[in-house]
Amino acid sequence: MKIERIAGGVTAAKGFKAACCAAGIKYQGRTDMAMISSDAPCGVAGTFTTNVVKAAPVIWDRQIVQTVKAAQAVVVNAGIANAATGAAGMAMCEQTAACAARALGVPADQVLLGSTGVIGPNLPIDRIAAGVAEMAKTLSDTLEAGTAASRAIMTTDTVNKECAVAFDLPAANGQGAVRVHLGGMTKGSGMIHPNMCTMLGYVTTDCAIDQALLQRALSAVVPDTFNMISVDGDTSTNDTLLLLANGLAGNAPIAGEGEAYQTFVEALFTVCRDLAVKMAGDGEGATHLVEMRVTGVDTKEHARALARSVVGSSLVKAMVFGKDANCGRVLCALGYAGVDFDPAVIELYLVGETDTLCFYRDGCVQAFDEDAALKLLSERAVRFLCDMGMGDQEATAWGCDLTYDYVKINGDYRS
Amino acid sequence: MKIERIAGGVTAAKGFKAACCAAGIKYQGRTDMAMISSDAPCGVAGTFTTNVVKAAPVIWDRQIVQTVKAAQAVVVNAGIANAATGAAGMAMCEQTAACAARALGVPADQVLLGSTGVIGPNLPIDRIAAGVAEMAKTLSDTLEAGTAASRAIMTTDTVNKECAVAFDLPAANGQGAVRVHLGGMTKGSGMIHPNMCTMLGYVTTDCAIDQALLQRALSAVVPDTFNMISVDGDTSTNDTLLLLANGLAGNAPIAGEGEAYQTFVEALFTVCRDLAVKMAGDGEGATHLVEMRVTGVDTKEHARALARSVVGSSLVKAMVFGKDANCGRVLCALGYAGVDFDPAVIELYLVGETDTLCFYRDGCVQAFDEDAALKLLSERAVRFLCDMGMGDQEATAWGCDLTYDYVKINGDYRS
Repeated sequence: MKIERIAGGVTAAKGFKAACCAAGIKYQGRTDMAMISSDAPCGVAGTFTTNVVKAAPVIWDRQIVQTVKAAQAVVVNAGIANAATGAAGMAMCEQTAACAARALGVPADQVLLGSTGVIGPNLPIDRIAAGVAEMAKTLSDTLEAGTAASRAIMTTDTVNKECAVAFDLPAANGQGAVRVHLGGMTKGSGMIHPNMCTMLGYVTTDCAIDQALLQRALSAVVPDTFNMISVDGDTSTNDTLLLLANGLAGNAPIAGEGEAYQTFVEALFTVCRDLAVKMAGDGEGATHLVEMRVTGVDTKEHARALARSVVGSSLVKAMVFGKDANCGRVLCALGYAGVDFDPAVIELYLVGETDTLCFYRDGCVQAFDEDAALKLLSERAVRFLCDMGMGDQEATAWGCDLTYDYVKINGDYRS
Repeated sequence: MKIERIAGGVTAAKGFKAACCAAGIKYQGRTDMAMISSDAPCGVAGTFTTNVVKAAPVIWDRQIVQTVKAAQAVVVNAGIANAATGAAGMAMCEQTAACAARALGVPADQVLLGSTGVIGPNLPIDRIAAGVAEMAKTLSDTLEAGTAASRAIMTTDTVNKECAVAFDLPAANGQGAVRVHLGGMTKGSGMIHPNMCTMLGYVTTDCAIDQALLQRALSAVVPDTFNMISVDGDTSTNDTLLLLANGLAGNAPIAGEGEAYQTFVEALFTVCRDLAVKMAGDGEGATHLVEMRVTGVDTKEHARALARSVVGSSLVKAMVFGKDANCGRVLCALGYAGVDFDPAVIELYLVGETDTLCFYRDGCVQAFDEDAALKLLSERAVRFLCDMGMGDQEATAWGCDLTYDYVKINGDYRS
């Protein structure tokens, strides 16, 4: 294997440290702030929400990614989103970054920020400042520190989400290969939808790579990873995905789209897909991961649109929750994806670990064994496959079922 | 008032009769088939689902609307959608229409069909045929017969939906005015989403009007009525809206876009909006009607997109169910509507029968009285208003809240 899964998350790569603390921003009895710092300056790449209403930290980070193009630290809080907070919200960003800059001895415009939680309230800046000061003193490069940070940024998530990989690249000194590491953490459970999901994601790597290529790599993997998941169709005001590269692995710096760049993209894709699928499976109230793979499509964009339409369908999601093999709903969701196709040639399957059922073929819903369907719908991951019979492109999207708990969680989120 | 509300539905207009029966197609102990017939041939107009996967009766009706352009009867069943049924499904349509044609003495290609229910199974043609024969013998022009028909086409609807109006138009004989009537019924509760909702809708009128104008009038009112409601974002395979005009009112036939045409359009709009709002408020599991009115928008299309985005948001819907004034979600849903606007100038309100609360202004969520918000969120109809501050166009969309019962209903629909 060229890309090897390893333990850890944001501290898996050399020279990255993490910390967290219980700042008491909204939650009690749990950590709610996290910090990542790098021993060396990092090139930085990012993608952000397409929502017209952007939270203050999104505006802050985008400015750094687009103009400064470098960073040394990230400060994240859970509980309050610092969104719809106007000029006061931007002032909070400045103050938070200034605190971190002082504590870490880095420029304030190289401190990235992230917030997640309720839209509207202002951040309690005194508690944020105290949290930043405390975390700056407890930074650690252990895997445990990365894991603790991934827990601190959770909101309605039920599990923390980390992933890391290692791979070999030619050494900078020309003497064989060096080991390069790439790892990340995400949070996201509600307000999850393509372009982008309501998520915060932080990926770190010790790879030496040109900043423009770093952004190109991130932009290349997002369409088939984070933009292919949906929990509820709501695109958040705060979505942020950041990728920091400090170059400490000692590889020959990646400066063009050669073999080393391709390996890096593959590693980044592996981590981003893993984190994206973990978010989809941990959607608010979810009891199932839903996967829709669409093959035989004329274009990649059509394939993505078809797959996304199915995982975004409330009726498909409710049917998976109820373990009810009402497959016409999958067909219906394909039909309103905005892609033209011939219903007479497509073939729709329910795919399990060991068994596969054909639901629809030759223009008709097929008779199937209800017990076999129930067994497949009882697996934690419910997988649909549809061959559209019109080309050779494919795409996969991930979502989750719609449950009583989703309604419960979102009927009273603020309290 | 030029347009007067009157009692009734599809039998409010002269020369229209209705009937229903318990054919035992899927449901037991209730009526599940309806028939409408006209004493005179009707011009017919229609709009149909945009779903690529179209049910057999949609294909059947579209053919009649586009080529025959005339009809004398409608036969509808609830319980089975006759969708994803291939050639067998089209054969069912032919047989059903042939039965009705024989029983009523009208051409088979002037019998419109509608089906709603589960996707996949074939219709039990023997029971359908028996139902058609029974209904043909019990047709009645009473208002009660129309109401009974509106009950027979319900699936998960909790209430039947009817509306009728009357208005005056110049008489054909040039002697003053005659009374013209227009009334309709709809069903629709799940799979409800713009373009179009999962709905069956039948509107009848005794107005004398050119068939091309009849279609033009229907196409003019649908964008701001049936296409502005959403229950769950799922566009069905079976959506059908039909408008039949038999000309028996004795008005001077409407042949151009003059005053009489405008009055007719206004009457049609009144009935269609009423039926659309009734469907939104009776969304599966709904405890609230949600109304989003957007004003001050640069274009009508943008206004519609903004309003629809809010009523389609799962998070807004769950928040209304929980009576939780988490207004940032309304702002967020406006933000991902695909319309550019300035978050600093918009103003968002919660509007009640007697009270109004400002949620968001000057780029910030506003402090508000929680008790007052709870009171407004406890009304059956929860109404939001947003002034976008960028023009003079407006639109209103309607939806419902997302409840435990929606999940329950759709987790096990087939049984």
